[in-house]
Amino acid sequence: MLPIKIVGLGHYLPARVVTSAALEAQLNLPEGWIERVTGVRARRYVESETSVGMAVAAARHALASAACDLDAIDAIIGASAAPQQAIPCTAAFIQRELGAPEGRSACYDINATCMSFLVALQHAAALISTGIYRTMLVCSSEISTHSLNYAEPTSSVLFGDAAAAAVVTRAAPGDVSALHFSKLATYSSGVDLTRLVGGGTLHHPNNPQTTPQMNTFQMNGRAVYKQAAQLVGPFLEECFATLGWAPEDVAVIAHQASGHALDLLTERYGFRPAQIFSNLAERGNCIAASLPLAFSEAVAQGFVQRGQRVLLIGTGAGLTIGAAGLVF
Amino acid sequence: MLPIKIVGLGHYLPARVVTSAALEAQLNLPEGWIERVTGVRARRYVESETSVGMAVAAARHALASAACDLDAIDAIIGASAAPQQAIPCTAAFIQRELGAPEGRSACYDINATCMSFLVALQHAAALISTGIYRTMLVCSSEISTHSLNYAEPTSSVLFGDAAAAAVVTRAAPGDVSALHFSKLATYSSGVDLTRLVGGGTLHHPNNPQTTPQMNTFQMNGRAVYKQAAQLVGPFLEECFATLGWAPEDVAVIAHQASGHALDLLTERYGFRPAQIFSNLAERGNCIAASLPLAFSEAVAQGFVQRGQRVLLIGTGAGLTIGAAGLVF
Repeated sequence: MLPIKIVGLGHYLPARVVTSAALEAQLNLPEGWIERVTGVRARRYVESETSVGMAVAAARHALASAACDLDAIDAIIGASAAPQQAIPCTAAFIQRELGAPEGRSACYDINATCMSFLVALQHAAALISTGIYRTMLVCSSEISTHSLNYAEPTSSVLFGDAAAAAVVTRAAPGDVSALHFSKLATYSSGVDLTRLVGGGTLHHPNNPQTTPQMNTFQMNGRAVYKQAAQLVGPFLEECFATLGWAPEDVAVIAHQASGHALDLLTERYGFRPAQIFSNLAERGNCIAASLPLAFSEAVAQGFVQRGQRVLLIGTGAGLTIGAAGLVF
Repeated sequence: MLPIKIVGLGHYLPARVVTSAALEAQLNLPEGWIERVTGVRARRYVESETSVGMAVAAARHALASAACDLDAIDAIIGASAAPQQAIPCTAAFIQRELGAPEGRSACYDINATCMSFLVALQHAAALISTGIYRTMLVCSSEISTHSLNYAEPTSSVLFGDAAAAAVVTRAAPGDVSALHFSKLATYSSGVDLTRLVGGGTLHHPNNPQTTPQMNTFQMNGRAVYKQAAQLVGPFLEECFATLGWAPEDVAVIAHQASGHALDLLTERYGFRPAQIFSNLAERGNCIAASLPLAFSEAVAQGFVQRGQRVLLIGTGAGLTIGAAGLVF
């Protein structure tokens, strides 16, 4: 049990709404196909927003809701699948655009694709518990537009753009807020099931052999679902056994991977639908921003209350499965 | 003081040596110019190696020197400036290629450019100290070839390719090994001084407005040096004040940024040259792999002994300055 508290959450959504009906018309898909297959009715796409600009907007909301001053931030973690640019890290740009005093915070990025926020939260909890930092800002911001693979309708219609941020600090003595459990496990037999092979040293943008297709996202959705379906039950059983909590007592905030992925939580693991927060239908899968965005919206809507037990759960490319049990 | 121990270090160097004389001939630079300006006589360039292949080779050496089994690894951190591909994280590929049992370890990447290893070491220490993990593998692997900017000779001749890895675990009771201090601070007024503007959401490889030049590295070396020169003295003073150690008692392992950057440690801060390990002349600046490579070579050559006080220090894009004081 690590005595940390998420004192503020915030998010940013681009104004532009793209409905599944509009995408069906654009991509020559049957009417109603996207929602039936993916569970997504609409998603947001950026217009002029940048990854950093969205992260900063989300961070401002999180800091305001935490009543936290910029000069209290000891570290800024950029926890996204895609950076704004290759060098330097996105977090350094966030420090500057947010106006956080330079030299006051350490800035770096953590990338576990869709599980980036969960890894960052676990790390923040460890760093705060050991006294290295007192207050940390975690920002997840994703723009998927240029990486969408229209040759693969099941994945290209799934994603939306968004940012979300959390301010994490030490819980005061006697405060019930705490991280009680966190676990991540990577099953690298699934490493090629969800991938974007460009963007790194293997298929560098300037390498003449790198094709535009290599710079777009590919997912074998059926195989990912199959692997995740096998893992989620035993993983959650270990999680609740360690926590000593009854599964029916938690609010579940899941990575909004897809409708089928979310259905696993009720069909395979037996959560009641009312326990599970979902914004998939209106937001799509917002990659690393998905989990903190759902968390932020769940809190804003009163779905999660202070002092309540929360389970964060999801899978990401790798394949990595992750969960955290916390008292909000 | 966090009771952790670096139980194994390892590194991998590509076989291909590229001398500064060869680069001077290729780039029409005066004979001797590169070594005079950068301090680099030779560096390694990959031939058929991949980022993951080099990381795995380094990890095997580190695990062998630690006598650590693959199934003891709780987490694998890819701590590099550049990933092998955009999705998934490099660490997941390391798990697979290393043959580490899947589901046993969590895999994710940390990016603070040249300070990535230092951030990862700090995080590993916090995670191990809180009991989240017991044994972690940190791998830094860099291939700069495609990102070199030959329009900017001072930076393009500076870099070399390499990988290095460290196995970090809990120190046994009574063991003197520990992380006594670690600090990172980002000065984002320097965010544009060291940059690679492509490779992310701002200038996506498939965006027709992205130019090849945007996918190469740019550095205002003079401005970076000036900013670093102002920061290193006060930063090190705070470091030693917190540690309570005499500066003359430590072995200094620095990020091998450049000859001028290393000179700051003796000229501005007063370390004796004999305290400072350097492999810059034969390795160049190996980005995130530079610091752990220097550490691994320093240990292999007996420059650092078990139980000795070590200072890790460096700067990276951001601009981020970082240091750690540990007993090896």
